[in-house]
Amino acid sequence: MAIGVVARPGRSSLGTLLHHVHVGGPLSRAVLATRMGVNRSTILALTAELTAAGLIREEHPAGTSGAGRPSLVVVPESERFWVLAFDVAVDRLVAARVGLGGAVLARSSADRPRAGVDLDAVVGKLAELGRDLVAAAPAETTCVGVGASYCGMIRPGDGMVRYGPELGWVDQAFGAELALALGIGLPVAVGNEAHLGALAEFQRGAGVGSPDLIYLHGDVGVGGGILVGGTLLGGESGYGCEVGHMLVNPFDGRPCLCGSRGCLEAETGESALLDAAGRAGRAIGAGAVRAVVADAAAGDARAAGAVATIGDWLGIGVANLINLFNPGVVIFGGMLRDVYRGAAPQVAARIAQHAMPVSRERARLRLSALAGDTTLMGAAELGFATLLADPLGVKVP
Amino acid sequence: MAIGVVARPGRSSLGTLLHHVHVGGPLSRAVLATRMGVNRSTILALTAELTAAGLIREEHPAGTSGAGRPSLVVVPESERFWVLAFDVAVDRLVAARVGLGGAVLARSSADRPRAGVDLDAVVGKLAELGRDLVAAAPAETTCVGVGASYCGMIRPGDGMVRYGPELGWVDQAFGAELALALGIGLPVAVGNEAHLGALAEFQRGAGVGSPDLIYLHGDVGVGGGILVGGTLLGGESGYGCEVGHMLVNPFDGRPCLCGSRGCLEAETGESALLDAAGRAGRAIGAGAVRAVVADAAAGDARAAGAVATIGDWLGIGVANLINLFNPGVVIFGGMLRDVYRGAAPQVAARIAQHAMPVSRERARLRLSALAGDTTLMGAAELGFATLLADPLGVKVP
Repeated sequence: MAIGVVARPGRSSLGTLLHHVHVGGPLSRAVLATRMGVNRSTILALTAELTAAGLIREEHPAGTSGAGRPSLVVVPESERFWVLAFDVAVDRLVAARVGLGGAVLARSSADRPRAGVDLDAVVGKLAELGRDLVAAAPAETTCVGVGASYCGMIRPGDGMVRYGPELGWVDQAFGAELALALGIGLPVAVGNEAHLGALAEFQRGAGVGSPDLIYLHGDVGVGGGILVGGTLLGGESGYGCEVGHMLVNPFDGRPCLCGSRGCLEAETGESALLDAAGRAGRAIGAGAVRAVVADAAAGDARAAGAVATIGDWLGIGVANLINLFNPGVVIFGGMLRDVYRGAAPQVAARIAQHAMPVSRERARLRLSALAGDTTLMGAAELGFATLLADPLGVKVP
Repeated sequence: MAIGVVARPGRSSLGTLLHHVHVGGPLSRAVLATRMGVNRSTILALTAELTAAGLIREEHPAGTSGAGRPSLVVVPESERFWVLAFDVAVDRLVAARVGLGGAVLARSSADRPRAGVDLDAVVGKLAELGRDLVAAAPAETTCVGVGASYCGMIRPGDGMVRYGPELGWVDQAFGAELALALGIGLPVAVGNEAHLGALAEFQRGAGVGSPDLIYLHGDVGVGGGILVGGTLLGGESGYGCEVGHMLVNPFDGRPCLCGSRGCLEAETGESALLDAAGRAGRAIGAGAVRAVVADAAAGDARAAGAVATIGDWLGIGVANLINLFNPGVVIFGGMLRDVYRGAAPQVAARIAQHAMPVSRERARLRLSALAGDTTLMGAAELGFATLLADPLGVKVP
């Protein structure tokens, strides 16, 4: 396999076409012409150039044969061009090879201790997983980028973790260190897990067609990714969307990892649910959360009370976000996917009570469609960004 | 005077130049060339066209004469082209003629009763003020647009007040009715007062140069206008930025005009302050608010306690907004201008306690620079939008 993307300017039409095929799957030239607003001869020229570069091919749609077959469709060369995607999840470290077009070609993971994990340990294990995936990749395939998802506040540009309360990291050069440890000559683009989740759900999940989108991701903490007009809300320095530290309980709130009390994540995170269910000090993690929600559904009164309490706080947070953002969709991912399944009535009641009718009238509430892969797919998209910006910058082996 | 703007496509460079002069004041051709990223011969052609249309003139900078005078500057024909701007403020109705370039050429206002004012009464009085201003305008000047600021949720496109709790309006065709009553052949563009305030402060006030900006406007209620990357946050249907109905006090909160309790505006609005100061049932309005803040500064313990309490809730709201938006600046306008003057320590303390350090590190807190004219100037900008989109669409008398 080969590695490398060299920046070249002025390739936006090629990148746009490749992006359509990457996200939209097999598309005919006619559909591409419509979506891109260009004529068929332009599409012909662009597909010829991308085909010559080995990035796409044209084929008959699957399941068609014989006379009267429909027109050719353009498909991405998914096996041949791929990225490495990493996800630092709350209880495991995940690495995957993701092909152009979004298919996971291979994956591996390792358990991760909850606390006391330093940068070297995380980077070392991720790099090991990544190098193994690279070594096992077929010959004559090309790694075109590396992306990583991390549960913290990430400095745009260099992947520095400015603040990651879950692991207690402050100003840790995660992206640079992972690139160094990986040693395959590519930089590592790092993003906040909920930001990446929002982009992934917009691109391939429950938010397709909704450019004003809120994605809420739960694990130990609660993160948010917010798209405004299809663009991630960055703010002055790229640190917007800190939904988890919205103060919702100003009196006697639960302590938060950030040092404050009563933050949305303190009231709706994993430990809030387990404590409310009387299960503190017992099992933790996604399985423990699911067990509370399942027990609540099965009639366990204490579990049901816990889910309702957490749902109430979650509903306050969502109502506030609807007032502020007038979103088309709010998507629950990670642990909040399970919580929302159990607490939808409480969330709906709080929205009805606190969100302005005009602001909430078009807001749909959805579970993440990519489920456990939401943040990983977002990391893969970060990895594909350079190729999609300049498809011919890639060096073919 | 004459009236009328006819839409014409493809005039964006002319509009851009006129916008620079409108917002930036007298500018030399060299500065315009730099700001627009075009060469001087293009600027020459554009200024010639705008001069021929009577929209700008070129003159020597004020205070210069004789040999070695600096280059000519381009200035807008402020007296000749103007808009009507209306502001439905909490205790008065304001109308103004605002010239190209942003100078208020003439203004008038009328007191407004607090409650029980229906659409006809507001529209009738505003139209009367507006027609008088039009009648008094010099001959050979042109009204190029009409904008209005209203304290409610406005449907984009037609100026329908979807929800205006302060006057109890629901689905009132304010923009259409005002245009009809005004009878000068121009539509009336309507915007929410805090949205317009945000745009005005970004353009000419405390937010110049800060495209990630939050403007908070207080009167009876509390409104917000939020710019994300220089664009007003609209959301799915244009009803975003409802900062005032963010729930901040989930326990025993004060009742809000929206029907809920504990909203930011219920805890920080005029009546919250006057009640906390023990002045319920006495004087109301901006003067009463200023008196509490002044008495607090002069040592009145009850007034000081009231300002501190309101400042505490305001600080919680601002901290939440900083976490969500990572803004470059937060601007306090309307009644909140006075409140913030008195309550800056409480606001700062809450931000330090609840906003993530990384999110708040670049957020400046400022008083509105346009003060009492913030929303009126925002309304004027709405009025200028058509002219600035297509300067040659205007019919010169």
